[in-house]
Amino acid sequence: MNSSVRQLIQSALDEDIGPGDVTTENLVDPDRMGIGTIMAKESMVVVGVSLSREIISFLDPGVKVRPFHEDGHWVNSGEIVVEFQGSLQALLKGERTALNFMQRLSGIATLVRSYVNEIKDMPVHLVDTRKTTPGLRFLEKYAVRMGGALNHRMGLYDGILIKDNHIQTCGGVGQAVNRMKEKAPHLLKIEVEVANIDQTKEAVAAGADVIMLDNMNISEMEEAVAVINKRALVEVSGNISRSKLKQLADLGVDIISIGALTHSARSVDLSMNIKPAV
Amino acid sequence: MNSSVRQLIQSALDEDIGPGDVTTENLVDPDRMGIGTIMAKESMVVVGVSLSREIISFLDPGVKVRPFHEDGHWVNSGEIVVEFQGSLQALLKGERTALNFMQRLSGIATLVRSYVNEIKDMPVHLVDTRKTTPGLRFLEKYAVRMGGALNHRMGLYDGILIKDNHIQTCGGVGQAVNRMKEKAPHLLKIEVEVANIDQTKEAVAAGADVIMLDNMNISEMEEAVAVINKRALVEVSGNISRSKLKQLADLGVDIISIGALTHSARSVDLSMNIKPAV
Amino acid sequence: MNSSVRQLIQSALDEDIGPGDVTTENLVDPDRMGIGTIMAKESMVVVGVSLSREIISFLDPGVKVRPFHEDGHWVNSGEIVVEFQGSLQALLKGERTALNFMQRLSGIATLVRSYVNEIKDMPVHLVDTRKTTPGLRFLEKYAVRMGGALNHRMGLYDGILIKDNHIQTCGGVGQAVNRMKEKAPHLLKIEVEVANIDQTKEAVAAGADVIMLDNMNISEMEEAVAVINKRALVEVSGNISRSKLKQLADLGVDIISIGALTHSARSVDLSMNIKPAV
Amino acid sequence: MNSSVRQLIQSALDEDIGPGDVTTENLVDPDRMGIGTIMAKESMVVVGVSLSREIISFLDPGVKVRPFHEDGHWVNSGEIVVEFQGSLQALLKGERTALNFMQRLSGIATLVRSYVNEIKDMPVHLVDTRKTTPGLRFLEKYAVRMGGALNHRMGLYDGILIKDNHIQTCGGVGQAVNRMKEKAPHLLKIEVEVANIDQTKEAVAAGADVIMLDNMNISEMEEAVAVINKRALVEVSGNISRSKLKQLADLGVDIISIGALTHSARSVDLSMNIKPAV
Amino acid sequence: MNSSVRQLIQSALDEDIGPGDVTTENLVDPDRMGIGTIMAKESMVVVGVSLSREIISFLDPGVKVRPFHEDGHWVNSGEIVVEFQGSLQALLKGERTALNFMQRLSGIATLVRSYVNEIKDMPVHLVDTRKTTPGLRFLEKYAVRMGGALNHRMGLYDGILIKDNHIQTCGGVGQAVNRMKEKAPHLLKIEVEVANIDQTKEAVAAGADVIMLDNMNISEMEEAVAVINKRALVEVSGNISRSKLKQLADLGVDIISIGALTHSARSVDLSMNIKPAV
Amino acid sequence: MNSSVRQLIQSALDEDIGPGDVTTENLVDPDRMGIGTIMAKESMVVVGVSLSREIISFLDPGVKVRPFHEDGHWVNSGEIVVEFQGSLQALLKGERTALNFMQRLSGIATLVRSYVNEIKDMPVHLVDTRKTTPGLRFLEKYAVRMGGALNHRMGLYDGILIKDNHIQTCGGVGQAVNRMKEKAPHLLKIEVEVANIDQTKEAVAAGADVIMLDNMNISEMEEAVAVINKRALVEVSGNISRSKLKQLADLGVDIISIGALTHSARSVDLSMNIKPAV
Repeated sequence: MNSSVRQLIQSALDEDIGPGDVTTENLVDPDRMGIGTIMAKESMVVVGVSLSREIISFLDPGVKVRPFHEDGHWVNSGEIVVEFQGSLQALLKGERTALNFMQRLSGIATLVRSYVNEIKDMPVHLVDTRKTTPGLRFLEKYAVRMGGALNHRMGLYDGILIKDNHIQTCGGVGQAVNRMKEKAPHLLKIEVEVANIDQTKEAVAAGADVIMLDNMNISEMEEAVAVINKRALVEVSGNISRSKLKQLADLGVDIISIGALTHSARSVDLSMNIKPAV
Repeated sequence: MNSSVRQLIQSALDEDIGPGDVTTENLVDPDRMGIGTIMAKESMVVVGVSLSREIISFLDPGVKVRPFHEDGHWVNSGEIVVEFQGSLQALLKGERTALNFMQRLSGIATLVRSYVNEIKDMPVHLVDTRKTTPGLRFLEKYAVRMGGALNHRMGLYDGILIKDNHIQTCGGVGQAVNRMKEKAPHLLKIEVEVANIDQTKEAVAAGADVIMLDNMNISEMEEAVAVINKRALVEVSGNISRSKLKQLADLGVDIISIGALTHSARSVDLSMNIKPAV
Repeated sequence: MNSSVRQLIQSALDEDIGPGDVTTENLVDPDRMGIGTIMAKESMVVVGVSLSREIISFLDPGVKVRPFHEDGHWVNSGEIVVEFQGSLQALLKGERTALNFMQRLSGIATLVRSYVNEIKDMPVHLVDTRKTTPGLRFLEKYAVRMGGALNHRMGLYDGILIKDNHIQTCGGVGQAVNRMKEKAPHLLKIEVEVANIDQTKEAVAAGADVIMLDNMNISEMEEAVAVINKRALVEVSGNISRSKLKQLADLGVDIISIGALTHSARSVDLSMNIKPAV
Repeated sequence: MNSSVRQLIQSALDEDIGPGDVTTENLVDPDRMGIGTIMAKESMVVVGVSLSREIISFLDPGVKVRPFHEDGHWVNSGEIVVEFQGSLQALLKGERTALNFMQRLSGIATLVRSYVNEIKDMPVHLVDTRKTTPGLRFLEKYAVRMGGALNHRMGLYDGILIKDNHIQTCGGVGQAVNRMKEKAPHLLKIEVEVANIDQTKEAVAAGADVIMLDNMNISEMEEAVAVINKRALVEVSGNISRSKLKQLADLGVDIISIGALTHSARSVDLSMNIKPAV
Repeated sequence: MNSSVRQLIQSALDEDIGPGDVTTENLVDPDRMGIGTIMAKESMVVVGVSLSREIISFLDPGVKVRPFHEDGHWVNSGEIVVEFQGSLQALLKGERTALNFMQRLSGIATLVRSYVNEIKDMPVHLVDTRKTTPGLRFLEKYAVRMGGALNHRMGLYDGILIKDNHIQTCGGVGQAVNRMKEKAPHLLKIEVEVANIDQTKEAVAAGADVIMLDNMNISEMEEAVAVINKRALVEVSGNISRSKLKQLADLGVDIISIGALTHSARSVDLSMNIKPAV
Repeated sequence: MNSSVRQLIQSALDEDIGPGDVTTENLVDPDRMGIGTIMAKESMVVVGVSLSREIISFLDPGVKVRPFHEDGHWVNSGEIVVEFQGSLQALLKGERTALNFMQRLSGIATLVRSYVNEIKDMPVHLVDTRKTTPGLRFLEKYAVRMGGALNHRMGLYDGILIKDNHIQTCGGVGQAVNRMKEKAPHLLKIEVEVANIDQTKEAVAAGADVIMLDNMNISEMEEAVAVINKRALVEVSGNISRSKLKQLADLGVDIISIGALTHSARSVDLSMNIKPAV
């Protein structure tokens, strides 16, 4: 497990438990054992099975875990996802934190799966964006992959994307791409965002590796794809609804990026049933 | 600013920028100044004005900020929320992180406001739950207050809530409440969750301060309110839609708690326009 | 174990050992095993048995521990509290840190026990205050419980206490309590500090849940208890010596809070005998 | 300010304030200014004037500070020590943490001063031990210096002290000292603890720089001082009361170390008067 | 300044100063001011001017800095690089840490400059590797840029490099490249390491973007360049001495990567002259 | 393992792996096991055997380790140092970090050994300085000991060294030493740096314990040793090459300190062979 995920779990538990669970610590004997069962309350692509084990293990390192599903599985409403046997106090204290993670991540994966299904078997990739919840990017991008899409860059450090602000600063698409070619690390491609056909031509001429068509309408995109003519990868972005996906794929674009996959997924419903061990 | 919020901002910037913004650092002179303007792209209750200042200040401690709105204000689509003057690199690097926070928090406050408006001037309080995004609870609960609702407990440490699992462990509602009364810190009230009228009677008899009616139907709730008869505060909880709020308020309950306020709010749309200073 | 306690142990070991124990590392072979025995050098309520295990385990994760007493036990002078078998270097390096914790915590519990014995079987609770050693509050409040008293609030976040400064800011006891009632989380009671009978009446009229009589003399307290007449819990506070406890309890107050339990306890004497394993 | 002191202040504020001061934040407007005055409630050697400034500055970086005394000054009961002007919320939130530090540190310095006065102008040094509160050693040893004594080693890393456990491991005083001489960093003296006259002779013969007479009675100490005869510094240690100090100094020892200076000092009384600025 | 650099400075100061500079604190009055001048004791490409300011500022936030050179400048022996005016204690405490950073980073830049000069104006890029000092990668790669070379990937996360171990696991060069093409983020190029002409052909056929010729001799490299024939970028690596650089460049390779730039640079000599201000 | 070493390993892994090894994670199945063998590519004093185990264990806590050599051993080119069996992903991710540590530390130890061999069996100690890599001091000083030399002070906190700057501030060698004698902790010796014979005499007269002859020529050193005449330890320092060591030892000095041991050691060559387990 990545060290920043470990810190995130720790701070999530700290914000919930703080100096102590005043209810549980006063009502439940620390030596008492229990069984906790996480169940899907609606159908979903589940994500967070091993994460939930990590969370409960922070509170009871000796907890026993019996997984019924893996991350990325489709789970029907009413199915058990994973079962824990361990300290009853640990189960009661960790329940909400474990569910908060799983509900959000499974919500993302479930939404992604519904998008991916629209363009199954077509030669186009669905990818996410950097519009993620602060502190959760690593996990949310993992959920996107579990849903069946790919990740765009993780952050500003592992991909070059020249946006309108950069273009304005450099004096034009061509100038920006050329300036970048002199300095860019040789393992990174150069992507540039274009808003019209003239900028598209400029990007091709300057040798951009990937061209992002930003907020163009269908006919502009069609023309842009023709202008680029396989000399660069084509990405489209900007307020793309699920119903438009197939139409975009038919245009011959290579990549469709959608912020809503992470920023507007709703949580799906999971619950944890906890009872004292007999 | 709370130290855990400072850490959250730092880790959000770290996850986005990592060892450096490879695009901006290669295209924009570090001495160049810029102007950044955050604008609402739809109507909303805005949250995060001073938080965005903190974020940009991490990257440029000397940035100048001109706020046009305060947290909790209703802002119409197209209105400017806040303007920054400072390092162009800092604006480009901090943009996404600032927007990711504001879009989520404003989304929560906007949803909360729409709920609160349903029960305006009625003697009932709308409150949130612990179903928050891991690591963001403090901020999400702040957004709830900006939307016009109140907070339930912050975590397991600042409020007593005896749930079904605790009741099962103690052998009944009465036993659980009585055991807690011997041990509870004298500044905390005792809330207990009940599932039927018998448990409600037991809770009243044992002297619970607050009684949560969990997933009861309307007629059960009506009976429970009558049974309690002002001897305890009454809270209702569980899958409550906006359209049912007024009906619940009419029953005479004191508190309505809704997880969806935080776990199923969608992000609202804000953008940051950045340009070089002339 | 709570994560802030883990950090406290780590920083305590760091401040004592720093880059290395220059004596032990030069004189004792790292592979050599040893036996360490913690013994009470005076009679006491012992606290820190499992904490000492955590401390030694930081230095030797494989150490074997044999406890002879539990936290809260009365231990006579000369009795063994706990025995460790493990790395001789680890025992020598951890000795002082383990003892520093135990001597202070056991000192608090022992003092608390002597206070509690004064009012045994009377319907009044002895509680601590926030006058704890910076960084050690969680542990010192644990020691108070092991001594037989209860905890007042852990900090400013889990209990409402309106003090003279707040009253002055709000314009009076009644105004402060009323303002708080509109905003207070519904799981917290409202306590207010009063200095005379007029303020006491105001507090009762405004509906305070708990009333703290601050530095009143006996006859004032008697009158205040009569005025309150069970309509709120009564707490007394301020320079209360052990010899006055019974007299206060006889007045019919519910809670007596005493800062000296934590801020003026002296350390009790424990030692650790360490010898090489044969 | 040392980075570990900064962390200590942060964690002390975190443990007291947590996610927020529920009383102050609901009753006091964040923009309201106030004046806070720290006053001695008994006569004392005051310690913590600049530390209290650091603490309040964590909460209000713009606070104005007016010191009336410096650390180490003798302050009479009723005198003002330092005055703050700043955010009223910051004063109310920081009050307890600032006082908790000052009361403990001033208590130590006041106790130390009373010991030092016993042996004023005599050729002997009073020093502390490692029996300090976990996490506070740096500050408590600072308080000892402010009281007028000197510090023994800060920790295990900046001084060599061969104790009975080490001697037993090495097979004798002579063997231990000789083994250490081969390996010790050349800037550190070698101190060895001895329990009787034979061990004292062995220590002198092996060339120890400092010899600690552990729990010897007066006549043994007299003989040991004579045996050592200025060939090493002489330190005495172990259950030394204030009344015995002069007698020990008369024996001709060089250093007297006393654990009670830090582990058994009681807190002295300081209060902070806070009122809204007019 | 990047947050991990800030942490590195803090830990470097902590490891040198620990609980205090026992010499300076006992000999120099804390209020005394001083002047510190950093001078080159040999000719070099200097790196660390602003870093040294950050270091001294940790100890005296009010220090005044007068830089005579910028990072990347050639400085002759005897020239002053930067001058500080501030707390004399801060200068004495920060001196060694500031110099330790500057000597190492300037040593790297100076070595890099001598390599770069060998292939000036030739169409080839000199780059570093991941063979950097643990904890210092960010700064050492910065020093490489200041010396005039470019950076290879920062770490395992921002560039794809398929090495012999990966090839062996996947069953061959072609299989590895093809498998990666299905999964690689679309903004990253695919580099593969080859050991002979057959593997080179396989890499070209599979469509690798960059091909690294690992430890080939001159004639093999010549053949490989011909085989690749501009269809991929060519990188050479492995025990490359400065004297062989021009010969390699003449072969038509695009990138030369050299671990020695960071792992075998010696420190250059800089000193800091400190004197009390008059 | 010291907690600051643990943090250093964590930050070294973080800087290399960041959010993930994009090559390995896409090409190697997480369940696949592998064998990694670290081999010396040149003859060396090896350091880092157990450190490399710690590093790989961070990534795979269950890895099995088979060491063939211990730290401080002389290893011939081609010999295997240590073998790991564990997760193939963990081996591939940890390889570079483990080697970066070992190459640097073994480089130091190998250089130190070659210096120590020059003065074998002579009554003089070779020691390091504080000219270490920021963040690595603890490990580099450990490597110095493994090479066969001793450590000078670890930092400013565990040894007194009065340098020219301090002398200038105090008004002379005698004044500085005398002032220090009043304040120095009684377990620390007092070392003072002298530049000429007059200062040497002053240092002896004032009773310095150790005298450092700074940048003196041979005849000056000879005179200084005679002047001191065993009344203090004699240390020489400043640009000392290996070839001059024996001559210095013959002069009768006690300690020779050399910054180059740590600041100018080159990395030695080690490699890790990794293959899938069959």
